[in-house]
Amino acid sequence: MKQLLAVDWGTSSLRGALLDGQGRVLKERSFPRGILTVAPGEFATVFEACFAHWTRAAGTFCLISGMAGSKQGWLKAPYCACPAGFDEVASQLAWVEAGRIAIVPGLSCEREGIPDVMRGEETQVFGALQLLGIQDGLLVLPGTHSKWVTVRGGKIENFSTFMTGEFYALLRQHSLLARSLPDIDGEVDWVAFDEGVALALRGSSLLRTAFSVRTLSLFGRMATAQLPSYLSGLVIGEEIRTQPLDSGAQVIVVGAPTLTERYQRALAQRGTSVQAVGAEATWCGLWALAQTIHPSWDKQA
Amino acid sequence: MKQLLAVDWGTSSLRGALLDGQGRVLKERSFPRGILTVAPGEFATVFEACFAHWTRAAGTFCLISGMAGSKQGWLKAPYCACPAGFDEVASQLAWVEAGRIAIVPGLSCEREGIPDVMRGEETQVFGALQLLGIQDGLLVLPGTHSKWVTVRGGKIENFSTFMTGEFYALLRQHSLLARSLPDIDGEVDWVAFDEGVALALRGSSLLRTAFSVRTLSLFGRMATAQLPSYLSGLVIGEEIRTQPLDSGAQVIVVGAPTLTERYQRALAQRGTSVQAVGAEATWCGLWALAQTIHPSWDKQA
Repeated sequence: MKQLLAVDWGTSSLRGALLDGQGRVLKERSFPRGILTVAPGEFATVFEACFAHWTRAAGTFCLISGMAGSKQGWLKAPYCACPAGFDEVASQLAWVEAGRIAIVPGLSCEREGIPDVMRGEETQVFGALQLLGIQDGLLVLPGTHSKWVTVRGGKIENFSTFMTGEFYALLRQHSLLARSLPDIDGEVDWVAFDEGVALALRGSSLLRTAFSVRTLSLFGRMATAQLPSYLSGLVIGEEIRTQPLDSGAQVIVVGAPTLTERYQRALAQRGTSVQAVGAEATWCGLWALAQTIHPSWDKQA
Repeated sequence: MKQLLAVDWGTSSLRGALLDGQGRVLKERSFPRGILTVAPGEFATVFEACFAHWTRAAGTFCLISGMAGSKQGWLKAPYCACPAGFDEVASQLAWVEAGRIAIVPGLSCEREGIPDVMRGEETQVFGALQLLGIQDGLLVLPGTHSKWVTVRGGKIENFSTFMTGEFYALLRQHSLLARSLPDIDGEVDWVAFDEGVALALRGSSLLRTAFSVRTLSLFGRMATAQLPSYLSGLVIGEEIRTQPLDSGAQVIVVGAPTLTERYQRALAQRGTSVQAVGAEATWCGLWALAQTIHPSWDKQA
């Protein structure tokens, strides 16, 4: 029976899932072997060490998405220019081993004079479309670098990157605000988070609103334990403020529940409803791409 | 003859100037002894070590502005609530030694629901007003934390802090963008700087525009050596975009020429003319405050 080894090889982690011909996840594994931990020339060795026991079965096809296709990765995969759908992506795979191991290309676009790129998120988007059975929509993939993605007729039309998660981490760890903040983030304080979102949505700029973390602390107007949630609200609110969302718009949020919950809550302040899709979108996207590449595949199961 | 030892004791540096009764600077010195380098209880020792040879003359009055008046400083000086002018500030000095050494209080205000504070910049503002012979104006003091200050009738009416310099440093040194940037900043590339300002002024958010540092580099559309100037334009442009500047507005920029030149150039893209005032504003402000405290002072010179 043919199987798919679906791999998400990102900057900081390496995850894999074994899927059967119907796209069912049989097994999953995760390793702290993001591409930044792998020396040039060592990618094949790391890949084999992590997944050899799954790839021994005859007819196992391996499809990899994420930063493994970047210049610092295993093999440079191209960027497909938007608009791009399954077919465009499937036709530009970077083959590590002909017919057996391939890396999914990234996407590029240009919007309002800003060139933009993604690697890995395109696969999550395709997976989310499959899971929801839709061809059009506005999606956000929150993270270190959040992506806002417009899909029309099953193709990714364009997208924008927001360095939201990274700004949070920089301010949290390296800025003068860090002195006002507790050593570790506790549970989300939703009141403080909502207050941060509300301030960000009122306008101004994160350059200004971020300083309120210090002053609210200085004047004892917010408890120290609440400040990380407040700061998270400020950065996520800033990201959401700049989106052109019509009243009654719906946004599909793709990611882990801890983040999608924050986006759902922040988007609610703009009157936007949310449909959440979990991390399974990656496996689903890789499986759908594998079917495009091997159209006869599921019939042989 | 009476003298003033004017001291600007900030987070990262300690500067002093000896002024005669007419406010003329006789000598200046600078030390890498910002308050962060001074252990609690050691401020008097550091102060004496740096300035004892200037303060021995009878009748030398010492006036200190900046973070020396913060909780982590020599002696906690209050925050004067805005609107605040010379009189309000002069009446709330924190006396280290009665009649001889005083610390200038900071200012606080609340604007659009955001509490804000400054320490040291109020003195520069008062100095700039003196130097220009004006009582009203919009001033910006660029820096790690830039301050935009509205003055009416000689009083600071309100102000806003923008963490512009700090965001630049965080992105420059600690973000994923740092990998695209050269090891050290070279001369300002004004073409790249202007391009960054122009993109920032078009709207969006620094969360998004900052990512263009990576993509312009990735696609070879901007030389590596230009990228720090471009990033500087993005952050300064973002700060300026959010200011409510009427057409034909004038802004007074107070600071070192290397920074005021950037602000002048960025503000020109909004059609705003600029009047620049240098670092001498600090000494002028402290001297003007000293005159308010000792009104008979210059007559005894």
